[in-house]
Parts: sequence; C-alpha cells; structure tokens
Amino acid sequence: MISPVDEKEKCSELNLRYLPLPGSRKIYKFGSIHKGIRVPFREIQLSPTLTPEGKESSNSPLAVYDTSGPYTDENIKVDIIKGLTPLRRPWILERDDVEGDKFLCAKSGKNVTQMHYAKKGIITPEMEFVAVREECDPEFVRDEIARGRAILPANINHPETEPMIIGRRFFTKINANIGNSAVSSSVSEEVEKMAWAIRWGGDTVMDLSTGKNIHETREWILRNSPVPIGTVPIYQALEKVDGKPEALTWEIYRDTLIEQAEQGVDYFTIHAGVLQKYIPLTAKRMTGIVSRGGAILAKWCMTHNKENFLYTHFEEICAITKKYDVCFSLGDGLRPGSIADANDAAQFGELETLGELTKIAWKHDVQTMIEGPGHVPMNLIKENMTKQLEVCQEAPFYTLGPLTTDIAPGYDHITSAIGAAMIGWFGTAMLCYVTPKEHLGLPNKDDVKQGIMAYKIAAHAADVAKGHHAAQKWDDAMSKARFEFRWQDQFNLSLDPQTAQDYHDETLPADAAKSAHFCSMCGPNFCSMKISQDVRRSVA
Amino acid sequence: MISPVDEKEKCSELNLRYLPLPGSRKIYKFGSIHKGIRVPFREIQLSPTLTPEGKESSNSPLAVYDTSGPYTDENIKVDIIKGLTPLRRPWILERDDVEGDKFLCAKSGKNVTQMHYAKKGIITPEMEFVAVREECDPEFVRDEIARGRAILPANINHPETEPMIIGRRFFTKINANIGNSAVSSSVSEEVEKMAWAIRWGGDTVMDLSTGKNIHETREWILRNSPVPIGTVPIYQALEKVDGKPEALTWEIYRDTLIEQAEQGVDYFTIHAGVLQKYIPLTAKRMTGIVSRGGAILAKWCMTHNKENFLYTHFEEICAITKKYDVCFSLGDGLRPGSIADANDAAQFGELETLGELTKIAWKHDVQTMIEGPGHVPMNLIKENMTKQLEVCQEAPFYTLGPLTTDIAPGYDHITSAIGAAMIGWFGTAMLCYVTPKEHLGLPNKDDVKQGIMAYKIAAHAADVAKGHHAAQKWDDAMSKARFEFRWQDQFNLSLDPQTAQDYHDETLPADAAKSAHFCSMCGPNFCSMKISQDVRRSVA
Repeated sequence: MISPVDEKEKCSELNLRYLPLPGSRKIYKFGSIHKGIRVPFREIQLSPTLTPEGKESSNSPLAVYDTSGPYTDENIKVDIIKGLTPLRRPWILERDDVEGDKFLCAKSGKNVTQMHYAKKGIITPEMEFVAVREECDPEFVRDEIARGRAILPANINHPETEPMIIGRRFFTKINANIGNSAVSSSVSEEVEKMAWAIRWGGDTVMDLSTGKNIHETREWILRNSPVPIGTVPIYQALEKVDGKPEALTWEIYRDTLIEQAEQGVDYFTIHAGVLQKYIPLTAKRMTGIVSRGGAILAKWCMTHNKENFLYTHFEEICAITKKYDVCFSLGDGLRPGSIADANDAAQFGELETLGELTKIAWKHDVQTMIEGPGHVPMNLIKENMTKQLEVCQEAPFYTLGPLTTDIAPGYDHITSAIGAAMIGWFGTAMLCYVTPKEHLGLPNKDDVKQGIMAYKIAAHAADVAKGHHAAQKWDDAMSKARFEFRWQDQFNLSLDPQTAQDYHDETLPADAAKSAHFCSMCGPNFCSMKISQDVRRSVA
Repeated sequence: MISPVDEKEKCSELNLRYLPLPGSRKIYKFGSIHKGIRVPFREIQLSPTLTPEGKESSNSPLAVYDTSGPYTDENIKVDIIKGLTPLRRPWILERDDVEGDKFLCAKSGKNVTQMHYAKKGIITPEMEFVAVREECDPEFVRDEIARGRAILPANINHPETEPMIIGRRFFTKINANIGNSAVSSSVSEEVEKMAWAIRWGGDTVMDLSTGKNIHETREWILRNSPVPIGTVPIYQALEKVDGKPEALTWEIYRDTLIEQAEQGVDYFTIHAGVLQKYIPLTAKRMTGIVSRGGAILAKWCMTHNKENFLYTHFEEICAITKKYDVCFSLGDGLRPGSIADANDAAQFGELETLGELTKIAWKHDVQTMIEGPGHVPMNLIKENMTKQLEVCQEAPFYTLGPLTTDIAPGYDHITSAIGAAMIGWFGTAMLCYVTPKEHLGLPNKDDVKQGIMAYKIAAHAADVAKGHHAAQKWDDAMSKARFEFRWQDQFNLSLDPQTAQDYHDETLPADAAKSAHFCSMCGPNFCSMKISQDVRRSVA
C-alpha cells in the first residue's frame, strides 16, 4: 500500500480548483438574525428574450442551490494541505458549551446537538444558514429539527461545513458514496472524488473506505469537505480486528466512534436494529443479508449467541454522539438485496426496532435519520415510505435507490433512479446514489458523476412532484428558454451544461446555430416550436 | 445530398451480422395450431450452482424475449440487398383475401386486419406466433385484439416481421425512433441504427425521416426489419409541398398514405385529433405546440380557417388502412412540451377526440393505439393513464417518456425513464424511447443504445411491478447468480452483458475473480454475501 507520506504529496498536487459551471457564478445571500451568515448559490445568467418585434425583454438570473463549496468560488484559493476555512468555528465557540484543544467536545453535562438547541427554541446560525439556503423561514427550520422531522448534520469538529438540512419538507437531498477498499483506490483519489461529487450536486458524502489508511483518508476528506461526511464506523472497527467479525467488542467499537467523532464525522450509520430474532428470517431469502454492516453483526450474534452489542449499548452510543453532535443514520442491515426479498418480515421487523431506537435517540436529543432499501419493485415502494413514517415517527428516511429491477448491472444508476424519484416524491428526505458500477466494482470519477446526475434528476423530479415552488421555477426557466430558442441559456440551465452543449454541437457546431430558431432534429424548414410561435401570434 | 445509388453501395457494405449476446444463443419455439410457426428466443446458458459441500446443481437456461431477428441467428446469412425472408407471406396468401403483383392489397370488399380476423374468432398464425412469444394462450391473444385492448401490427406488405403484440396485458414494449433530417444522417446509417436498436431490445422502430430520400430510406429499413415499422406520413407529405404546411391537401396526404401502406409501413401516426377548437388553448402555454405533426396541422387549420383535414377525412383514411392492415397510432399533436403544460385543457381535449376516433377506427376493424405525452411531473402521470383508458375504451396507450423534469438535457433518457417506468406500470402498452440527445440533436448509434437500455429497464420494471411472472423469473435468475457468486452468469443475464463484464474487469480483470466469492467493493475479507451464506448454513 501507498504510505501516508506519499499520499500527502499526491494530495498536495491535486488540482481541485474547478471553475464555476458555464454561464454560472457563485453568489452569496445573507441572513438577518446572525452576523456573518453567507449562503452560497449558483447564479445562472440568462440572456434577454427577443420579441417578434425585435425588442429585448430581460430575463432575471436564476439562483439555484449550490453544494460545490469554495472550490467554485473564484475569489477563494483552496489549500488542500491546510484544509477549508472553519466557517462554523466562531458560531460553535460562541455557544460556550464546548471545550478541548486538539478537538472539541461538549463540556460536562452539556448537549451540543442542533436538536437540543431547537427544542429549547434557539435558532442557531446553522439553522439560519439553512433557512436562507432553502428559501424558508428560520423558525420553520428550527421547528422541523425539534420535532425530529429533519436533521442538520454538523459535528462540532467539522466546522468546515456549509450547513444543510435533511427533511422531507425541504429540497430532497442526495448522498454520494466514496471510499477505497482493500483492492483499489488511494487517498488522493478519494479526496478528488469528494470534490467532484459536490461539484455536480452531492449534498453529503459517505466515506465507506474499508482498506488501509481509513483514518488518514477520512482526515483528508473531512478537512476539505464543505458538505457533511457520513461513515459506517463498524468498517473501521472490523479492520482493527483484522476483518474477523466475531472478534469485535463493544470497547473497540466505542473507541472507534470516539475517534471518528473527534475527527468530525457528521453522521454514523449504526446497524443497531439487526436483532438476533430477525436473523433466521433472512435464511430463506433469495439473497440473504447484503448490507456489509448487517452481515458483520449477524455473524457476531450467531458466533456469540448474544444480542447485537450496538442494540444493548445504544444508550451509551447516544451519550457519545450527543457530545459532538454526530447524527444517527440508523442502518438497515437487513435491507433486501433483490426485488424478490423486498418488504419481507426481516426488513420490516428491523424497521420496527429502528423506530424504537429513534425514540431513545430523541430522548438524548440525538438527531436521527433512518436508512432504507435497496431493491424494491415499483409496486412495493409506497409501502416502505408509509411504514417508515409511521413506525419511525416521521424521522427522515434515507434510502439507497431503490433499484426497481435486478437485470441491468452496468445501468443501476438508472434502475435505481426510477425507484429513488418515486420514494423521494413519497417522502424520502435523502437519496443515496447508485453508480453504474454498482454490483460490479468501485466507482471511478466518471461513475461518480453519472451517479450524481441520475440522482439529481431523481431528487429534482421528486421536488417538482411534491409541488416545490423553487424546483418548478428552474424547469420553467428552462422551458421558456427552449420555447424562445435561447440555446445558450438552455445549456447553462442544464444540470450538466457542457454535456448539453457538446451534444448540440455534435450536429450543429456553428455559432449561428446558437441563435437559430431550429435544431438538428428537424432542420430550418420544419420546426414545430417555430410554427407554434406563429400560432401564438395568430391567436393573440 | 448523397444519391440513392451511392447509398445502395453503402448499404451493401453494411455489416449487420451481429453475434448473439455473450452466453446467449438463438433458439426457436413452435406453435401447435399452425404449421411453420418458429418463434425466436434468446436462451441464456447458466453454469451450475456449487453447493457448500462442493457438489454441482444445475441451473436451467433462461429463455427471454428476443427482438433481434435473423441478425443474431448464426445459421442465417442476411443479405441487405435482398432483404429478410418474408416469413409471413405464405400465411397472408393462404387467407386468400389479397391480390396484387408488386404489392398486396385486400381484394375488393375484404378487410385484412388482424382485428377483423380476431372479431370473427379466427386465430391467425400471427396471433399464435405472439402467443408462443408471450407465453400465453392464443385465444387470449385473439380476444385482446378483438376487444381493441391490443394491436398486432402486421402490414401485409411487410411480411418480414416476426409478429409482436402491443397491449397492457402483455410484455411492455418499447419503440426506438430513427430517421434522418435535412441537416444530418444517411440511408445506410439509418438501416444500421434499426438493426442496432433491435439488437438491444427495440420492439418496433419508427422511421421519422424528414429530409431527402424519405421513400428510399424507408424501403431499405422495411425490407431489412423483422420488427414493425411506424411512420408519421405527414412528414413526407410536407416534403412534397416543399415544407409549407399551408400547401398540404387531402389528396397529397392520401397518396402518401397509400404509398407508405404499399411499401409495408405497419403503423401510422395520424394527428387527427388536433381540432380547430383546441388550438387557442395552446396559446398561453409555456411551450405551445411541440409535436411536429400537431404544429403542421395547427398551421394548416389557422391558414385556411378550416377543420383539420385528417379529422374530416378520417373514414376515408380507415378505408385505406384496412386494405393493408396498417394500424393507427393516433397522434397527440397537442402533447405538453414542458412539465408546466402537462394535463391541460388542450392535451385532454385532444384525448377526448382521439377516443371518438378510436370508435370510428374500430367500426372499420382498424387496429388502433393512442399516443401520449411527453413531459409530465410524477404526480400527474397516473391521471393520464386513467383518463386514456376511460376515454379511449382501453385502446393501447403509447407514450413518449414522459419526462419528469425539464432541467437535464443530455440525460433525458433518464428523466423520461422514470416517467416511462411509472406509466408502464400503470398500464401503458408501449414506451417510445428518448435518447440522451433529445432536445439537442439527432441520436447516433451509441445514443440509440443508451435510449434502448433506459427503456428496456423502464419496461421491465413495469412488468415486474405488474406482477408479470416471466419478468420476475429473469430478476430471480440474476439474484440467485449474484448470491452464489456466479459472476459469468451475472454478466450473461444482464441486459448488456459486455458492459457489465467490462465494468467488473476494470478493477478485477483476472479470470480467477470470475469464480471468487467476493468483488472489488469489499475485497476478500469482507464480503456480506459470503458472511450471509455462512449465516444461512448456521440457521439451516
């Protein structure tokens, strides 16, 4: 394996200075309650409409949600070695409830979670930041967090984050998984994937590294990530016992949690719902247990004939996480790995337990979301959402896909975008992306982009279907540009402007075609949009 | 433009001899009523399961629906110049109701549509072929056609087709649009796209050519296509009047219909529902009229202040099409071109008219399907399907997508696969694909494949959600192979085996990895599937 020293050199050579997307620039909006709240947006410039009479009528620029962080701010020079500016540090220190030198921790007897503040009626700078970002009332943000209907992942040791919220009354979010494994990838590649994922719209990133250098990889990612970072701590715990699930102990796991909380991980996947009694329910499944965490814990339970130690120690876990404000992402260790296994007794049994654990977490004011499947045919998707809202008291749902068929490896970003869009519409708050490499290999940079694109589409389609005003505005801007043959605006309004323009230019590369009232589909004599504009004039 | 002579040379040089997909071979199944019915399937070979005790237990090969025609039959040498074997010719002639030399036409007073036969209680060879293909009862096929709930496109002048059926109680079908335009493409490229589209699963192909050589292009495609070919005859009619909609006449259109029916086109898109009264309803839309056919007819109606001549001559059109058994695909000329315009008065008004026209078509025993949108947010998709079934008396629905958001040009195969999967589940019988080039340019060969893949996924996900037994069987075979680490079987069972294997081999190229009980996601020490198999053994 590459030594950390080599990796440092490689990381320092990374060029993550991405330009803003074509036709866009970074702007900031400001809060009114707290000083110093600067919320980033991607502002898309639009050209004027040319009326039939030859006059120009201007189109307001469109400001859209921006996850890309300082990397796309032309006025900021990111230094990978130093890491991003810890913009939340003053907010955290001002609350005067933390202590620590190398890292921060709640003072004795203090609870530093956003849920804790929210329940006390406090609108934190983080909450106001989110309100500006989501174009809603700060009090609404506070209330949703207090009720447990939304979470604001913001570990006090990850002050580099630009606060964001996960809840079904806000924009639907997407997560990108990255991370190396025993057979592939390096630290610098993972840092690059993180920056690449957020450029295209990743709202959070999970570092699922399982090989060597787990701590090191995570450190580089955290210090350079403006979005919340999630992990599955049992992966690292397992490395500490040489990959032998039966050798895991509560103490090793606990120490791993603390190590990661101190580093700044914003949410932990914890498979505390994999109870002994559910394991036999998976024996007759088509594909058994497919969650790595679920399988590890099942193996541990079977070997020791004891209850899952994450379940038996759950209150102690809460006691740790609330000291750093690490959110729970209660893992679905028994999620189906094939559509044949969807919505079975094992899956729904575990979900009931996750509902119980949510209540315990909330007692400690630990912010909590619930992970969901996986592989589910379309006709069974709604049931998942309905059941989750009911048994988990509306805690945000965070689903992987789901894939709606198993027959298309190589295209599982599409098989799952279908399920993701639907469950997003039904109420899932965050969609975990699936890349074209799912079931086949680790995603490279282009796979990450393809996965993000499919999931931005799913999340946005969900927002539109939910009647989200700001989402519809974007579609309307695109449609208006299309009807008015403002080609450059169509490209710039796209999720992926350069690809849109490249596809157009493949057939009509000339600059004149960018202002032409036709495209390569029909040619100049035969455009329905043009005829339609004539019709409009006649009717008017 | 390239002359037809050059094109002939280019076509003759085309190599459309595709090998069967990896791990698959072409097999045929036979009918029991009619002699000579040989129905193609793609049979996927599977390796045996290795039990924990080291024994082998065989897995039956899986026979799946095969659209690829003789091109993938290693025993057939396709000669592009001569065209495919006219396998239906004997069946057609045996019915003794046609006449003609260069082309066939119903004898005076005869009606040669499959609906006509079906209503008379006759199970034609075409219907039996379909029954074998769909693994259902021939009488069921006949009944669905007689009721108008399904169509079997089979122009008597296109005897090269391998019969297929479009109806919601059968496999969901997909259509691939090809065709050149005034600014792009050549005849040979279009023939190649046709063969390419069916290789990957296109059930029908629409030739939407609008440039020069329309007749010539269509001829090459028809003579070499084993799947039904659809067209929009008004495109060619418009070329005959130099692209001026107002110069169109019933006579020019009628002659075009006959020309195409004689050539063998299997279904016509006819925009007979664009009535004068609906046109003003589009004036306040975000994107007006986006259907080319719809726009042409709107322009014609406005210029002449007369009712749509396709509507006023509809009975005469029926009289023509029933002589060749050309199906109707009643066009939605007023479909929405943006999600903002979905489900509006113009769209639904036209749909009502299409329902009336369906009744007239059925009076003539003309097989009829109905085209649908377009651009529709997820929350409005169901309404389309419900309304279509109701007002069109369950005639098959044939939808373009729908796209569920407008903001992702370059990825509209995905924005629309989401809508397509949903509306397919709700009851759409055929999904018209959308390629990544939609709204940007004409699809090339790779775009065609990407569009087909996204739509095979949508159609299959719909079949699974509808509880189609044969569809589920495929997913189960894949899931079993996955759980048993039969990597080669996983690749071979994929919609796109080579891509699946290539993605896998990017990280683990060694042959040994094909039988390894892990993959590059986790590596050898850490596989949930492996642990899960251990769990299964412990519980058993």
